[in-house]
Amino acid sequence: MDDALERIAASTEVLHAERRIVRFQEVDAAGIVFYARVFDYFHDVYVAFLRARGAPLEAALREGTWVAPLRRAEAEYLRPLRFGEEIAVAIVAVELEETEYAVDYRIDVDGEPACVGRSRHVAVDPERFRRTPIPDVLRRALEGGAGRGAPTPGES
Amino acid sequence: MDDALERIAASTEVLHAERRIVRFQEVDAAGIVFYARVFDYFHDVYVAFLRARGAPLEAALREGTWVAPLRRAEAEYLRPLRFGEEIAVAIVAVELEETEYAVDYRIDVDGEPACVGRSRHVAVDPERFRRTPIPDVLRRALEGGAGRGAPTPGES
Amino acid sequence: MDDALERIAASTEVLHAERRIVRFQEVDAAGIVFYARVFDYFHDVYVAFLRARGAPLEAALREGTWVAPLRRAEAEYLRPLRFGEEIAVAIVAVELEETEYAVDYRIDVDGEPACVGRSRHVAVDPERFRRTPIPDVLRRALEGGAGRGAPTPGES
Amino acid sequence: MDDALERIAASTEVLHAERRIVRFQEVDAAGIVFYARVFDYFHDVYVAFLRARGAPLEAALREGTWVAPLRRAEAEYLRPLRFGEEIAVAIVAVELEETEYAVDYRIDVDGEPACVGRSRHVAVDPERFRRTPIPDVLRRALEGGAGRGAPTPGES
Repeated sequence: MDDALERIAASTEVLHAERRIVRFQEVDAAGIVFYARVFDYFHDVYVAFLRARGAPLEAALREGTWVAPLRRAEAEYLRPLRFGEEIAVAIVAVELEETEYAVDYRIDVDGEPACVGRSRHVAVDPERFRRTPIPDVLRRALEGGAGRGAPTPGES
Repeated sequence: MDDALERIAASTEVLHAERRIVRFQEVDAAGIVFYARVFDYFHDVYVAFLRARGAPLEAALREGTWVAPLRRAEAEYLRPLRFGEEIAVAIVAVELEETEYAVDYRIDVDGEPACVGRSRHVAVDPERFRRTPIPDVLRRALEGGAGRGAPTPGES
Repeated sequence: MDDALERIAASTEVLHAERRIVRFQEVDAAGIVFYARVFDYFHDVYVAFLRARGAPLEAALREGTWVAPLRRAEAEYLRPLRFGEEIAVAIVAVELEETEYAVDYRIDVDGEPACVGRSRHVAVDPERFRRTPIPDVLRRALEGGAGRGAPTPGES
Repeated sequence: MDDALERIAASTEVLHAERRIVRFQEVDAAGIVFYARVFDYFHDVYVAFLRARGAPLEAALREGTWVAPLRRAEAEYLRPLRFGEEIAVAIVAVELEETEYAVDYRIDVDGEPACVGRSRHVAVDPERFRRTPIPDVLRRALEGGAGRGAPTPGES
């Protein structure tokens, strides 16, 4: 595991978390969750996080205010997940730059990390799809979760 | 099995067909293809059929010429499908009315029907989403495949 | 809409229900929920229902006690669903026979039906995959939800 | 882009490749392919590659000969993919160690890289799920594709 993912596994901070139960159809022919599905889990908690922070993605798309497609995604698998298991999917950190940001995720089972990951997004102009500074409404939402100070307790 | 699906299972006509191999991730925790995935198979061959008939859905969406969402879908499962099996997914009939049409599907394994189904679509105005006569470009494409005369040989 | 689905749309009984928000990735290139995804919704509430009734599918699979694959599935679409919409997915009826059972589903948005459907399952021997009477543990769970008497209040 | 992914984007070697057309339902609410779906594409070509090399995953699972779950996955997105686009998904390199291996992927559109990625797998004992040397049948299949000598011409 590289250093960044090591940090995510060890992080005690949680900016947003959701409990879910592994679905019947998320398992593959080997009997464990198909590896790509954890990226669906990551994205679901990212969407819920934005909604909780007052910058819902559905509104941004409808109104054409911002769009921030992925430039990079990665995950490290620490143990397999099985149908019916209860998991907690959390955002543990957000890192903001001028035109990009990274979101760190962790999936826990019984309080132990089962998977960690990171997505890196680029803010682009919704019309020309060119790189642009992160719009204020999005920056504020992400920053609200990226405070250096007291850990934010928010879970849902 | 109701009469309509019985006819689909017994049909010798094939308007369009595609071979595919059941994917690793289409299987569920019971070890067979998840039942909803056959509707993905149906839609894939429907999209390929429209493309082959000169009325690609991607162009219709891009240009806003027509849209025909589903009003109804059904499938009957005759035998389970497993990871790695080669299947043939076919459109065996199209039935046109003024504002609606139905498409009949069959999935064969080794020449035996494993699943049959039907989708029923309504032509709607792309802007107001109100029922409208099937646009000419779409009607011609579907009719090309719905001729009562000589059977169209299967394509792959 | 055929009579059975008409009844489902009008039903006031709810045996089990779950609230969920339409996911970003459940939408298709036409901008509405891909038609096959409602069958995923149906199955999710079916799995939750079995769990709530004390006959979890995950335990049945693990222990090889019972398996009841689908023989038939159908859905009728009354209005499109969009990313970010909150929906209620409910089981409104279960119908038991000797070796088969049917489950009726309804998806509501703001208290109005957006989709109705039905799945028909066959109990089969886990080893030989041959039709068998519905096992007691499964029958009791399904019957608990199929009572003719007082309506069971919806759970979430 | 980190160095490894930079190399994948620039690689002229192709060990195995498949053409496919982006599906209607692989697109998300933002109108481009959902980021997690490229991992489905990667896995599909990996499965096809193993099949072509004489070590089909479906046989390994059926016979319990080997299993090699993912330890890590990553992707870098260079341009969005849209419904109806024809893409080529290729395996461009395989790297073998004692108990692990990495597979490098590239998705091209019109001969230009649109996405690159890597999966890292660990050979485990099918029964106890403990790390084990890569079994011979799997090593031979992967090595056949990892030759340092003459470049293997792409297959489709």
